[in-house]
Amino acid sequence: MQTLNVALGERSYPIHIGPGLLRQAERLLPHLAQPRVAIVTNTTVGPLYLEALSGTLAGAGVEVIPIILPDGEQYKNWETLNQIFDALLTHRAERKTTLIALGGGVIGDLTGFAAACYQRGVPFIQVPTTLLAQVDSSVGGKTGINHPLGKNMIGAFYQPKLVLADTDTLNTLPDRELSAGLAEVIKYGLIRDLPFLEWLETNLERLVARETQALTYAIYHACRNKAEVVAADERESGQRALLNLGHTFGHAIEAGMGYGNWLHGEAVAAGTMLAAELSRRLGYLTDTDLRRIAALFERARLPVKAPALGVETYLAYMGVDKKVEEGRIRFVLLERLGSAFVTAEVPAEVLRATLAQTTH
Amino acid sequence: MQTLNVALGERSYPIHIGPGLLRQAERLLPHLAQPRVAIVTNTTVGPLYLEALSGTLAGAGVEVIPIILPDGEQYKNWETLNQIFDALLTHRAERKTTLIALGGGVIGDLTGFAAACYQRGVPFIQVPTTLLAQVDSSVGGKTGINHPLGKNMIGAFYQPKLVLADTDTLNTLPDRELSAGLAEVIKYGLIRDLPFLEWLETNLERLVARETQALTYAIYHACRNKAEVVAADERESGQRALLNLGHTFGHAIEAGMGYGNWLHGEAVAAGTMLAAELSRRLGYLTDTDLRRIAALFERARLPVKAPALGVETYLAYMGVDKKVEEGRIRFVLLERLGSAFVTAEVPAEVLRATLAQTTH
Repeated sequence: MQTLNVALGERSYPIHIGPGLLRQAERLLPHLAQPRVAIVTNTTVGPLYLEALSGTLAGAGVEVIPIILPDGEQYKNWETLNQIFDALLTHRAERKTTLIALGGGVIGDLTGFAAACYQRGVPFIQVPTTLLAQVDSSVGGKTGINHPLGKNMIGAFYQPKLVLADTDTLNTLPDRELSAGLAEVIKYGLIRDLPFLEWLETNLERLVARETQALTYAIYHACRNKAEVVAADERESGQRALLNLGHTFGHAIEAGMGYGNWLHGEAVAAGTMLAAELSRRLGYLTDTDLRRIAALFERARLPVKAPALGVETYLAYMGVDKKVEEGRIRFVLLERLGSAFVTAEVPAEVLRATLAQTTH
Repeated sequence: MQTLNVALGERSYPIHIGPGLLRQAERLLPHLAQPRVAIVTNTTVGPLYLEALSGTLAGAGVEVIPIILPDGEQYKNWETLNQIFDALLTHRAERKTTLIALGGGVIGDLTGFAAACYQRGVPFIQVPTTLLAQVDSSVGGKTGINHPLGKNMIGAFYQPKLVLADTDTLNTLPDRELSAGLAEVIKYGLIRDLPFLEWLETNLERLVARETQALTYAIYHACRNKAEVVAADERESGQRALLNLGHTFGHAIEAGMGYGNWLHGEAVAAGTMLAAELSRRLGYLTDTDLRRIAALFERARLPVKAPALGVETYLAYMGVDKKVEEGRIRFVLLERLGSAFVTAEVPAEVLRATLAQTTH
């Protein structure tokens, strides 16, 4: 097991990474304010891991309220959030009752937002069971739901008390979701960690083969990079925006294709290629750089070509993106491999030319 | 005009109190992050004050998005909150667009919660137009909505950048709502400020007559008391609970009578009399003390007798209250006039006897 501390003053918390953590009551107990928790999971993850986690807690004298939600990004909405509130109120969950998110990013976002809002804030623990959630959604405190007019438009910054990333849970993850998680792992190398990017170029097949040691290393270094960024900029005013490499394009892809058809990580991979292409057109990256990025994504079995939605559709979806400021779109670009920056100085014609390339 | 600073570190903000503030752009402008705001109001307050406030801002070059909601506690729910989100997204409100709450406590709670959640947090200004909102809901950062299973169960702690309490807006307030606000004003005297309680005993009729100077004095001292409590305990772990004098009973009254039938302040007045009666039965207050409290409420035209809901109904509604901890109910009691304390040591039979008195 490796442990990383996310340094956020009085909101600091540990991330434990490694195999078998679901069975270790001693990891959870010190963080519970009362011997009562609600475990929020879904109909896919519940049958696989709810009994194990509940058993660990019940064996330590902790009462468990199970809350099982439908599975899928299309359920990341108010109706599903309200199912959590209904269950908490029906079971008279109190201000010291801890909410545990057992599942992927959707479960983490829903549960974290429910914890932020229920009685104006109750304790919250993340037990992410997908690679994407382990390296991304469980670090940084972003929680929330989608709105018909925009993804992640309603939410809160809310930190967990603890994150348990049990690498054993990745053994049941579908290949496509493992790949989607690798998109975010590769992102950390691209934006701020060239040595990690080079480690990935050497070891990517070990991750695809789900070797525990390689996974633990990759999750640790992805989380370390994200934790460093978040610690410096908890409320996303400055460098935290760099984490959104590929996301402005990616959100447009997800929205344009209909939420749930492209996985978030798949959209980020194709979106990152658009951001890289934009960086190349503005003179930052070379053709060789782009080939290195594409090769990594392809070895991770990720799409490198964005769908041909049409330039205007892309622009429309990008216009309601949260990264809009004073009506101008801010882009995360790569100045070289291992270093990203934010700019609002992208000429409209270069953006259009980049987007037009998706139709070729 | 009087100004009070609420000291909460980097979340500190000023409260301006006095006549004519809606017309003073210079109070608002320094607090706007961009020259664009959304004013959230309702169908009662909008026709009275929206044009004045919009005009003040538009005259200073600020773009205004008006959002007009239905009026009433029964609309303090997700559907109404979502009307705010719909309008913000339709108008492409950004992270620096300030939300201004123009109205009473319901508008303040809804708008504050919308500001806390929209894009995970946007700036927020309170322009409370009821006495209750000026002395209570605009100080302390509590925001939220009701749930069918409990009042204020979903929400956030979220501080405004500024509060403008324009005493002129109280001239259009219905008598019953002015009285409801006085219930909270009297509460501050009861829980921690005997000199203010004595000032109220001397000046209550001036408040009922809506004398600007008396209102400014009373609002200032109510807010000062609340600000001192909140500054010491922003997240309601300790002494902030004292602000809930009468509220555990009051919430049961509001719920038991059907939300919207008793005003919050009316329920707090009758609930405070129950808390005072419980304090008397436990040996803290004298019959004379109770008569002094009842006399103040009656001069403010407030109910001093709680409705005969039945003991079991009261207990049931009190059981899901947020002030429940480990299954025990914590009560705010008066140890004497001007001093309150919290206890979980209330014998069940004394509580039942107090509640049984409501049926006589």
